[in-house]
Amino acid sequence: MTFTFIDGGITAPKGFLASGVHCGIKNRKKDLALVYSESECDAAAFYTTNKIKAAPLVVTKEHIEKGKISGIVVNSGLANALTGERGLMDAREMASLAGFALRCSPEKIIVSSTGLIGKYLPMDKIRLGIQMASKSLGATRKHARDAALAIMTTDTVPKEAAVVTTLSDGTRITIGGMAKGSGMISPELKRWQATTLSFITTDASISSVALESMLESSLDKSINMLNIDGDRSTNDMCAILANGKAGNRKVLDVDPGFQSALTALLQSLTKQLARDGEGAKKLIEVRVIGAKDERDAKIAAKAVVSSNLVKCAIFGEDPNFGRIITAIGASGADIVEDKVSLTLASESGSVDLISNGKLLALVDDKNYRLARQLLHNSKIDILVNLNLGNGEATAWGCDMSYDYVRINAEYTT
Amino acid sequence: MTFTFIDGGITAPKGFLASGVHCGIKNRKKDLALVYSESECDAAAFYTTNKIKAAPLVVTKEHIEKGKISGIVVNSGLANALTGERGLMDAREMASLAGFALRCSPEKIIVSSTGLIGKYLPMDKIRLGIQMASKSLGATRKHARDAALAIMTTDTVPKEAAVVTTLSDGTRITIGGMAKGSGMISPELKRWQATTLSFITTDASISSVALESMLESSLDKSINMLNIDGDRSTNDMCAILANGKAGNRKVLDVDPGFQSALTALLQSLTKQLARDGEGAKKLIEVRVIGAKDERDAKIAAKAVVSSNLVKCAIFGEDPNFGRIITAIGASGADIVEDKVSLTLASESGSVDLISNGKLLALVDDKNYRLARQLLHNSKIDILVNLNLGNGEATAWGCDMSYDYVRINAEYTT
Repeated sequence: MTFTFIDGGITAPKGFLASGVHCGIKNRKKDLALVYSESECDAAAFYTTNKIKAAPLVVTKEHIEKGKISGIVVNSGLANALTGERGLMDAREMASLAGFALRCSPEKIIVSSTGLIGKYLPMDKIRLGIQMASKSLGATRKHARDAALAIMTTDTVPKEAAVVTTLSDGTRITIGGMAKGSGMISPELKRWQATTLSFITTDASISSVALESMLESSLDKSINMLNIDGDRSTNDMCAILANGKAGNRKVLDVDPGFQSALTALLQSLTKQLARDGEGAKKLIEVRVIGAKDERDAKIAAKAVVSSNLVKCAIFGEDPNFGRIITAIGASGADIVEDKVSLTLASESGSVDLISNGKLLALVDDKNYRLARQLLHNSKIDILVNLNLGNGEATAWGCDMSYDYVRINAEYTT
Repeated sequence: MTFTFIDGGITAPKGFLASGVHCGIKNRKKDLALVYSESECDAAAFYTTNKIKAAPLVVTKEHIEKGKISGIVVNSGLANALTGERGLMDAREMASLAGFALRCSPEKIIVSSTGLIGKYLPMDKIRLGIQMASKSLGATRKHARDAALAIMTTDTVPKEAAVVTTLSDGTRITIGGMAKGSGMISPELKRWQATTLSFITTDASISSVALESMLESSLDKSINMLNIDGDRSTNDMCAILANGKAGNRKVLDVDPGFQSALTALLQSLTKQLARDGEGAKKLIEVRVIGAKDERDAKIAAKAVVSSNLVKCAIFGEDPNFGRIITAIGASGADIVEDKVSLTLASESGSVDLISNGKLLALVDDKNYRLARQLLHNSKIDILVNLNLGNGEATAWGCDMSYDYVRINAEYTT
């Protein structure tokens, strides 16, 4: 499949405008984002599987099920979760205000919040914010960046990506996206579900059914294979909007070119999220092959990126193969000790640590010291071959540093 | 039920001897323990569910299935896991040497190892250690303590308990126990399974079938409700030996007095383990009531003690009720937002934070500050009423501090 990454974010596809402003929910930083499409969009979304769902998710789900979408309003700083009836009224008012400012009905607005749980939204500030944001909408690189900045919480950098590809009918289209999330990140792959906040736009014309199906498939190979700290949020959401400005014949089923480009875009956002995990110093990519089946490969790969002990070892630059194999052994995936192979790699090289169960590195020997050197890099690859079947999967995560504890002991989410 | 804790450990019941020595696997600290019963014991054991199982577990399972047990040999420093055929031979040799020193057949020996994974045992040192340990066996308080010290890895204090109770036939009996474990602790409640190392002795006469049944039931209310870091070891084991020296009529089924005392003893060891979790500053006890059923209560309680974000919040003395409810929402247990109640307590008092979904404490208000004060204590109680049914469960864990990261980034397990 052919696709090309370009510099850009949520406004890269034709006909999408965005803005990000500071309205006072946070002390100084931007805290309210708007996204607006010049023409109505087909849309699909996935939401957290957490049984406690924040008010904006309830409202967004209603609106997506009703049909077309014109815009997205997101605030950061407060999650509007555990806020009961009042929280629901506040989320509806956010849709109403955004609809008024963008000249569409409230049902055409996606509402999203992220931040501290258990505190009511300051609606006076939100009102002001939506007014300001609607007046500063634009389609430039800076507008996209402002929106990406305005949805951040403990994130240290904004996450954006844009990719260009060609549909089956030959039309060249663009997909853009932004995401946020640094802690409380452990997505799960169900229908009423997703992970972190991520918003994707495209100028392709695609039915909502096709969007949902392709988004689900791409999420399973990207954000749903991300684990930062094992805690699953009440506010996670991923939404995609397609406004049809590219003029293609409407896609009603899976378009292979779009599917590949969407997966690549979401994988880019996933790696950006993992690298900026709370306190993270290193991005960890775990590739499991040779698993009994794909399900086993997925749970094995996720078990490794989810292990606190593996994460601490990587932070300490200790090639602790015992912890990696132990995590897979506990994951539920089939593993046979004398078949497993393990390789550590980074941009400075690659070292085989275990081959068909045989230890090629013993603690403190030459291979162990070589592996230790590899771990000085900021991206670490862990490659596991279970040698049992054809199942393959990749998962992403980050190391666990003192800063993870500091951030979560000192910051109230 | 009536039972009384007494000062003591593994040698508290009649007829059990123990010792702990330094044989050079570790640099300076004790690293080899022996336990010996003057008469043969009925026995039962549970083992890790990790699919990678250390060599000593394979050998111990064979021996327990063959029948009577006379002794236990344990080394710390190295786990003899991921060591293949050679590891299995080494574990068998440990049983053989201990059997020779204790004048019994190798099949009457339980073998256990704990420490670094992926390194072969130094059998010359083990041989010397078993010889020394067999010559220093004794039944005093100090002998029990020496054995408890010799099985420690990153533990900072030994874990011991002893309790006296009366059986149905009126016989007064004693149960003693020791345990170790500070990291890689996340037990699961299956048959070929258990958690950390814990060894229990009793002078009651009890069949191995009854021992297994009562041990399983007590583990489900104690060590199996413990989570320190979510990582499940390859070496976990819990074994119980009953030598019959108390002279009771042999227990063939559940004895309520024994069952209660065994549960209390294991809960005492569980709290000692939780309080000494790697880097732990605070013991956390989570009690969930009003769950739909017992299973829901268990997964909800375990989800709270397992949440990195909750653990960091407790370390930071932040009464972050949002993270607690979010953890339960993601656990799979049924939860209805407007029915849940949450109370934080410690020895300095108790504060209701949520009542039937209504927030009684908002971030930074008076109740929130009261709750923050409670968290200055070293034992924190989290009480959750889901108000949905009669399910109840208690789980134990600890906070997550900078030292957890330091220990696991700098120490190779």
